[in-house]
Amino acid sequence: MKTINLAVFPADGIGPEVIAASQQVLHRLAQLHGGVSFECREFDWSSAYYHKTGRMMPADGLQQLEAGGFDAILMGPVGSPAIPDHITLWGLLLTIRQGFDQYVNLRPMRLLAGVVSPLLNPHRHPISMVCIRENSEGEYAGVGGRVHQGKPGEVAIQSIVFTRRVTERVMRFAFDYARQHGHRLVTNVTKSNSMQHNMVFWDEVFQQVAAHYPAVATDQQLVDSMTARMVSQPETVDVFVASNLFGDILSDLGAALTGSMGLAPSANLNPERHYPSLFQAIHGSAFGLVGKNVANPLASIWSAQLMLAFLGETELATRLMSAIETVVQDQRVRTPDLGGTSSTTEMTEAVCRAL
Amino acid sequence: MKTINLAVFPADGIGPEVIAASQQVLHRLAQLHGGVSFECREFDWSSAYYHKTGRMMPADGLQQLEAGGFDAILMGPVGSPAIPDHITLWGLLLTIRQGFDQYVNLRPMRLLAGVVSPLLNPHRHPISMVCIRENSEGEYAGVGGRVHQGKPGEVAIQSIVFTRRVTERVMRFAFDYARQHGHRLVTNVTKSNSMQHNMVFWDEVFQQVAAHYPAVATDQQLVDSMTARMVSQPETVDVFVASNLFGDILSDLGAALTGSMGLAPSANLNPERHYPSLFQAIHGSAFGLVGKNVANPLASIWSAQLMLAFLGETELATRLMSAIETVVQDQRVRTPDLGGTSSTTEMTEAVCRAL
Ligand SMILES: CC(C)[C@H](C(=O)O)[C@@H](O)C(=O)O
Ligand SMILES: CC(C)[C@H](C(=O)O)[C@@H](O)C(=O)O
Repeated sequence: MKTINLAVFPADGIGPEVIAASQQVLHRLAQLHGGVSFECREFDWSSAYYHKTGRMMPADGLQQLEAGGFDAILMGPVGSPAIPDHITLWGLLLTIRQGFDQYVNLRPMRLLAGVVSPLLNPHRHPISMVCIRENSEGEYAGVGGRVHQGKPGEVAIQSIVFTRRVTERVMRFAFDYARQHGHRLVTNVTKSNSMQHNMVFWDEVFQQVAAHYPAVATDQQLVDSMTARMVSQPETVDVFVASNLFGDILSDLGAALTGSMGLAPSANLNPERHYPSLFQAIHGSAFGLVGKNVANPLASIWSAQLMLAFLGETELATRLMSAIETVVQDQRVRTPDLGGTSSTTEMTEAVCRAL
Repeated sequence: MKTINLAVFPADGIGPEVIAASQQVLHRLAQLHGGVSFECREFDWSSAYYHKTGRMMPADGLQQLEAGGFDAILMGPVGSPAIPDHITLWGLLLTIRQGFDQYVNLRPMRLLAGVVSPLLNPHRHPISMVCIRENSEGEYAGVGGRVHQGKPGEVAIQSIVFTRRVTERVMRFAFDYARQHGHRLVTNVTKSNSMQHNMVFWDEVFQQVAAHYPAVATDQQLVDSMTARMVSQPETVDVFVASNLFGDILSDLGAALTGSMGLAPSANLNPERHYPSLFQAIHGSAFGLVGKNVANPLASIWSAQLMLAFLGETELATRLMSAIETVVQDQRVRTPDLGGTSSTTEMTEAVCRAL
């Protein structure tokens, strides 16, 4: 019997509901499989924890997590209307991303059969894109400050920091991923026409890395027109590699195009496994839905599926993905975001049955 | 007879074709009106000029332009496949925006009757949004550099610089615009959850400025989920105010949602009129279409319409807007981007007839 050790963060808002759903599905999967079990340790670090302690996690939170020897982290959404977002996010999620060097944020965006896209005729040209987002520096380096605060002459500076090592590794990851998963095109998302320091550098590194992958075709798209391309010609987008901020923006757009924020998963990866990777739905904490048992758990469940794939549990990952696809295609059980009236519980049970 | 002095830059790619079309329409408008004439001085500063001289414009280009006493600048798209984009853009357009303190980039995004949006059912909820984009600093401040160039330890830094004076003025502009044009909602586009210096500052200024406009409702949207909102609930978006980069990205998305990049206009405004403002289609130079007489001239013509409105030529502006709407709604004359086979010339003539 193989044990997979998980650190589980229900976190904020609808987090506890969708994380419980994901755990239920994982345990059911383990039961059916027989050879694997999930050992989950729950952490209450969250906005509620902040209200009690004045911190999102203990000062030695990263060390505690590291000492736990976890194979992965499952996390609910972070953020609360009662606390400024930069406090909650830098207090937990962004610190873990950076601290555990989760330098790839992998975000598949696929329009599943049975889901209605806001686009006209999307099924004529199936939407299936993969965002490989740099996840450890760039616009999220956190570098900057303010001077003359509150005065007429105030200046606020946020510095975007790109380093060659980090830029190269995420691009290599993108090309390796494309090659391993049979993708033919890697699109470089840039803005080097106006951002003449960081993005010109980014383009140079892209060219240099691409030269090592002659079998993978490449193209380049400005981030602004990339939004237009995703909307007007989504079928031309395959894998794209983007900076931290650009990946953030484009993956929300991609999620919307694939029908619901309630379906979009993400994987924050430390590919070398020096640290645990973190899996999380990309939707927010949606305080308005809390306790109503209506949140779509599939984004979180799909994130757990990405975890299984990353951990090399291919059989489990494949089985879970088909279950998700079956439930969605079937359309009988649908949470409100997908146009139905089913509950979180019903959706979770439907996935368990489909396993 | 009133004379309006225009500096005209055909610029790159399809620029000469769409700029000629715009001039033709303006002259026809003047003819019909009787009391106004347009005096156009053409400037050949462009990528072609760069190939001849090694510069996009003369070293004293801004001074020359200022000395010309122009009421406005009409410009074609800038950029050429043969020259790195940051050279062409910083050599001309971005330098003029900054040099002439064109601190507002006004971008109406309206789905005209007769145009097919890539969205399902967009006419059920008409799309009509206005992007007020900060246009003089922020992510486009141009500040930064690179160290250890080409070496493994290379670092590239691009600093985002927000100043209070500039942030306040664009927000005041947004609220004044909303009030004057009967808009009820101004959305603050932010990313203060991850960008804790510049965007937290931005949000503070937004709150402070908003307090002076109690009659205008406000809300706040993260730039990433703003893309989802624009796609899934475009009818909830009215006026939004965004940083230079965020406005750039969201206005391309908005243009795509309103059916064609060939329709989207922009106005780079110095509201105080210390310097001439600049009007330009938001599409690119599209070298693939050059000389084929197929480019849609309407984005450029609509930009000229924004110019008339800005110059206070309300009657001319209204007349031109109805002509554009008539031609588009009529659908008999449509360039390929709108699904037709008409030429640039035919489209331009149709607008002249509709005047
Ligand atoms: C919550 C926020 C800081 C985060 C981000 O911007 O990375 C989220 O939008 C995401 O995409 O995971
Ligand atoms: C050409 C480019 C520098 C420009 C910008 O990014 O501002 C364009 O995309 C625009 O939106 O006007």
